[in-house]
Amino acid sequence: MDLGTLIGIASGFILIAIGIISNGSILTFLDPASMMIVMGGTIAATLVAYPLPSVLESGKIVKKAFENKKSNSNSVIQNIIELANKARKEGLLALEEMSNDMDDEFLKKGIILIVDGTDPELVRNLLETELSFVEERHKVGQGLFETMGSFAPAFGMVGTLIGLINMLRKLDDPSTIGPAMAVALITTFYGSLLANLVFLPIANKLKVKSRNELLEKEIILEGLLSIQAGENPRIIEEKLKAFLSPAMRKPLNEGVEENA
Amino acid sequence: MDLGTLIGIASGFILIAIGIISNGSILTFLDPASMMIVMGGTIAATLVAYPLPSVLESGKIVKKAFENKKSNSNSVIQNIIELANKARKEGLLALEEMSNDMDDEFLKKGIILIVDGTDPELVRNLLETELSFVEERHKVGQGLFETMGSFAPAFGMVGTLIGLINMLRKLDDPSTIGPAMAVALITTFYGSLLANLVFLPIANKLKVKSRNELLEKEIILEGLLSIQAGENPRIIEEKLKAFLSPAMRKPLNEGVEENA
Amino acid sequence: MDLGTLIGIASGFILIAIGIISNGSILTFLDPASMMIVMGGTIAATLVAYPLPSVLESGKIVKKAFENKKSNSNSVIQNIIELANKARKEGLLALEEMSNDMDDEFLKKGIILIVDGTDPELVRNLLETELSFVEERHKVGQGLFETMGSFAPAFGMVGTLIGLINMLRKLDDPSTIGPAMAVALITTFYGSLLANLVFLPIANKLKVKSRNELLEKEIILEGLLSIQAGENPRIIEEKLKAFLSPAMRKPLNEGVEENA
Amino acid sequence: MDLGTLIGIASGFILIAIGIISNGSILTFLDPASMMIVMGGTIAATLVAYPLPSVLESGKIVKKAFENKKSNSNSVIQNIIELANKARKEGLLALEEMSNDMDDEFLKKGIILIVDGTDPELVRNLLETELSFVEERHKVGQGLFETMGSFAPAFGMVGTLIGLINMLRKLDDPSTIGPAMAVALITTFYGSLLANLVFLPIANKLKVKSRNELLEKEIILEGLLSIQAGENPRIIEEKLKAFLSPAMRKPLNEGVEENA
Amino acid sequence: MDLGTLIGIASGFILIAIGIISNGSILTFLDPASMMIVMGGTIAATLVAYPLPSVLESGKIVKKAFENKKSNSNSVIQNIIELANKARKEGLLALEEMSNDMDDEFLKKGIILIVDGTDPELVRNLLETELSFVEERHKVGQGLFETMGSFAPAFGMVGTLIGLINMLRKLDDPSTIGPAMAVALITTFYGSLLANLVFLPIANKLKVKSRNELLEKEIILEGLLSIQAGENPRIIEEKLKAFLSPAMRKPLNEGVEENA
Repeated sequence: MDLGTLIGIASGFILIAIGIISNGSILTFLDPASMMIVMGGTIAATLVAYPLPSVLESGKIVKKAFENKKSNSNSVIQNIIELANKARKEGLLALEEMSNDMDDEFLKKGIILIVDGTDPELVRNLLETELSFVEERHKVGQGLFETMGSFAPAFGMVGTLIGLINMLRKLDDPSTIGPAMAVALITTFYGSLLANLVFLPIANKLKVKSRNELLEKEIILEGLLSIQAGENPRIIEEKLKAFLSPAMRKPLNEGVEENA
Repeated sequence: MDLGTLIGIASGFILIAIGIISNGSILTFLDPASMMIVMGGTIAATLVAYPLPSVLESGKIVKKAFENKKSNSNSVIQNIIELANKARKEGLLALEEMSNDMDDEFLKKGIILIVDGTDPELVRNLLETELSFVEERHKVGQGLFETMGSFAPAFGMVGTLIGLINMLRKLDDPSTIGPAMAVALITTFYGSLLANLVFLPIANKLKVKSRNELLEKEIILEGLLSIQAGENPRIIEEKLKAFLSPAMRKPLNEGVEENA
Repeated sequence: MDLGTLIGIASGFILIAIGIISNGSILTFLDPASMMIVMGGTIAATLVAYPLPSVLESGKIVKKAFENKKSNSNSVIQNIIELANKARKEGLLALEEMSNDMDDEFLKKGIILIVDGTDPELVRNLLETELSFVEERHKVGQGLFETMGSFAPAFGMVGTLIGLINMLRKLDDPSTIGPAMAVALITTFYGSLLANLVFLPIANKLKVKSRNELLEKEIILEGLLSIQAGENPRIIEEKLKAFLSPAMRKPLNEGVEENA
Repeated sequence: MDLGTLIGIASGFILIAIGIISNGSILTFLDPASMMIVMGGTIAATLVAYPLPSVLESGKIVKKAFENKKSNSNSVIQNIIELANKARKEGLLALEEMSNDMDDEFLKKGIILIVDGTDPELVRNLLETELSFVEERHKVGQGLFETMGSFAPAFGMVGTLIGLINMLRKLDDPSTIGPAMAVALITTFYGSLLANLVFLPIANKLKVKSRNELLEKEIILEGLLSIQAGENPRIIEEKLKAFLSPAMRKPLNEGVEENA
Repeated sequence: MDLGTLIGIASGFILIAIGIISNGSILTFLDPASMMIVMGGTIAATLVAYPLPSVLESGKIVKKAFENKKSNSNSVIQNIIELANKARKEGLLALEEMSNDMDDEFLKKGIILIVDGTDPELVRNLLETELSFVEERHKVGQGLFETMGSFAPAFGMVGTLIGLINMLRKLDDPSTIGPAMAVALITTFYGSLLANLVFLPIANKLKVKSRNELLEKEIILEGLLSIQAGENPRIIEEKLKAFLSPAMRKPLNEGVEENA
């Protein structure tokens, strides 16, 4: 679990609920019709804006923001170094059996390409195209949530306009003005809250996670090419560690020492 | 049909209509004069902003957002592989007759260039210029709808200002204030709704579709150049499959196996 | 005449006028003092933002948005092909006399450079610098109108604030509140209308026209360099046609056939 | 003096003053406390946003927007051509004494590098680093004013919120509501006016001036490298004139002819 | 201490406090519940938007905006020149002991690489990767504060909507409208103030500081590579001084002369 995402959304809604209760009733703020306009409108507009499969996949994308794939750049580098040592001692072909234990599809694919004796330039080309495709797909996911984050407040305003126009049409009874306006404003409230507590933050979290995943894949790419070039495992390690922040490097050093 | 676009726009308007009816009358929200200001103003401004032919073409562009050109990156790759096999066995000249069955103009043009023995560098140049031109033309279409998406709310506000100023001028009868303000707000309502349910989402859908179309053309470009270079069909397949997402690749594998 | 620009601005103002009249008097919306604040403020801020000569030139720039320089990419290509044929038959020096009939300064300059036997690399350099300079100058023109499009609503709001503050100061007579607020809102109305019907659309039209002009100049540049390199006129035609959209190419084909 | 900047700011404030007087008293709009909140808040936020020395330098930067350094691209080119002629006739070393008469530090430095026989690649490197540094420094100046242009309206709104909250707290006497709101709105008025008549336009003027200054330095850079390469002064002239707009070129031609 | 940051935030809050007191009571503006909604909501959304470790580190990042790491580009250059002299006289290996006195990790790492006789291309690669990683990490810090600067006003508005809706629900007693609205507006006030006096300016200050730190590291990188290439210390000095502004260069010249 990505605790940040969970705690953030939960605590955000609890805070807002406390803010509401301290001066009124939570029931006032639960209005199914308003929710229908804001969420329904947002989803409708998103269906127009994005291909159906992408929209249907959004549930899966949201899940990604809640998952906490342990950032394993360190173990990735260790894997690469093990592969490099193996390749040094037993030749490139020995990597094939090792690849069966890996569960990273990208790493597997790269090893197979190397074992097949593919031209290094072509290996780089194929893996970089793969990489840019992953990036592209991630961007669609982020874009989906950013788009929802811009449509939600817009439909919040549309809902408020509907409420205001309906209210202004029949100003017979002044005592109804207040409650009618209150209801009208609820859609704007929903729109702002959804955009700023759910859609936009999730879009950002997806962006951060995407960057980490791409960084890992870049480490794999550089590592595999170095292995193919027959570089010294020590130099490979030095090279790949440059991708890590100093804070992340320490455990690696230890790990490698333990390994050595 | 692109179901997403259709369902999105239809359900969006239905939702808004339900939201309106639940508390008032749909007739209140049908105001031809307001529609004239918002749509008329938006079209007028767009006529100033874009060349006449582009604006007149906007109907055709909208149609594109509703069409569901089955994403056929897979069949494109299969076509390329068939061409590669043909070229291997019977030489480049044999491609000419095959090109007659293709209905992709871009692919046809590329084949003719290859068959004519054009210099590879020039083939790449010509096809890339063509590609960048297609991209440019797509961008004009997207820009048109983005522009309309920014003008619609602006003219909504202009309409509301006109209504407010007219109302404020003659505040004799307080009982008319409410209805007059209601009418004034309808243009803002139209502007927001058009922008966020129609113009901006369509602009985004056009962008996504353009990207897919360009991806296909890039696959064709790379494939043709590989054929011209006499590369092995298997390697060409490997190269082009990197352009596809893993999800899209599966059917291809099957298809190719069936083909084999 | 660029009919789009003319029709757009004219019909936009007529529509707004109809919208006003349908519910009030056009006289209410003609307020010289408000116009002075909005237009005066916008021009004053633009004088601070841009060099005096650029601002003084803005009249000439506006004219450009109304002109309809017939997009003559086709005739440009035909000119280039004629030049290429001439150069093939009679040598590069023969181009000099032909250049006298051309009225495109850029084309003329390029021909002279070629005739003078300038190094191809230098020709490209000189013409590209010229091109980037033209682009830069165009951007200043567009920027001028975009800037005015952002200042106009700002001064509209400043005007409304002045009106509101003046009104709120003396709330003695409630019957004056309405009309005073109406007057105060007129500057916002002016600002929005000017920005969205005049300044921003014109800035966009200038951008589109600039792109077309630069495309033509790029065609000339590529064409001249191909002529200098002694390329086959047929290949030059093929190369340059790639710059045109399929729709634009047809008339060229005909034209060339007629020519042939 | 840059007349545009001066006339723009002066006429802008005069126009606003006329707009105020026509319907109220200018005294209403002079509120030291409001000015303190807007200007003070803007300066405080800018102190947080930028390093102290940059903020203290802002006076000097403003001065730049009012100065009218006569755009002397023409004389720069003439200087370069004179240097080129001198170098042709008397050798590169002869440039040293000429450099003493120049007051452009950048030109001087370049000449010294050339005279010292520095490697051309290194000369380009050193001068381009210098250039990019000048650009960087200019960008800080522009950023400072853009930042102030975004903080001023924000603190205008903060001031208005303070005024509104204070007013709403004690709604005992309805007759005070109007004047209190008027005072509250004055900070928004200040913020908008400062941003749109002073900060943002000055940021833009600084950008334009920076571009001109960098253009001159680029001309010098290209010219010096051509001189070092021993190119023909005529070709150097041709090359450098491409940096000028056609309008700017005419006086140069005359000047050079006079010179010749 | 970075006096600018401290003085800016302190004087900003004092100014606002004076503005409040001049017309009301500071107590009105201290509302824990409102602060909870704005700050709590902002932090909750930030937890969703950024990884937990980055958010927890934000305290450390803030500290950076208050620290005044004396910009020591000059001493960095002097260090490099000393190293260059040492390397000239005693060979590259002599640098190792000197590196022990340095406290810049980046410089140390670079020296070790050089002493180890690492290939220059690899040294550049490793240090540039390190550099781009530092830049990336800095950007996360800036992004964190920019994000908070956009969430704070959003939750300010959410809080105001809650207050307004609660108030409008029960309009029984008109005398409570004013104070209730005042309280409702306080969250908007908090959101604007936090964003414009704290979050956004700090994000900008972090950006400026990051640029300076990266500049220093670039100077080190270029200097070390020049040392490794065995370049003349005078030329190295000339090269590195180009990274400094003229104002910063003077003390260096003196320092170097003193040193000489």
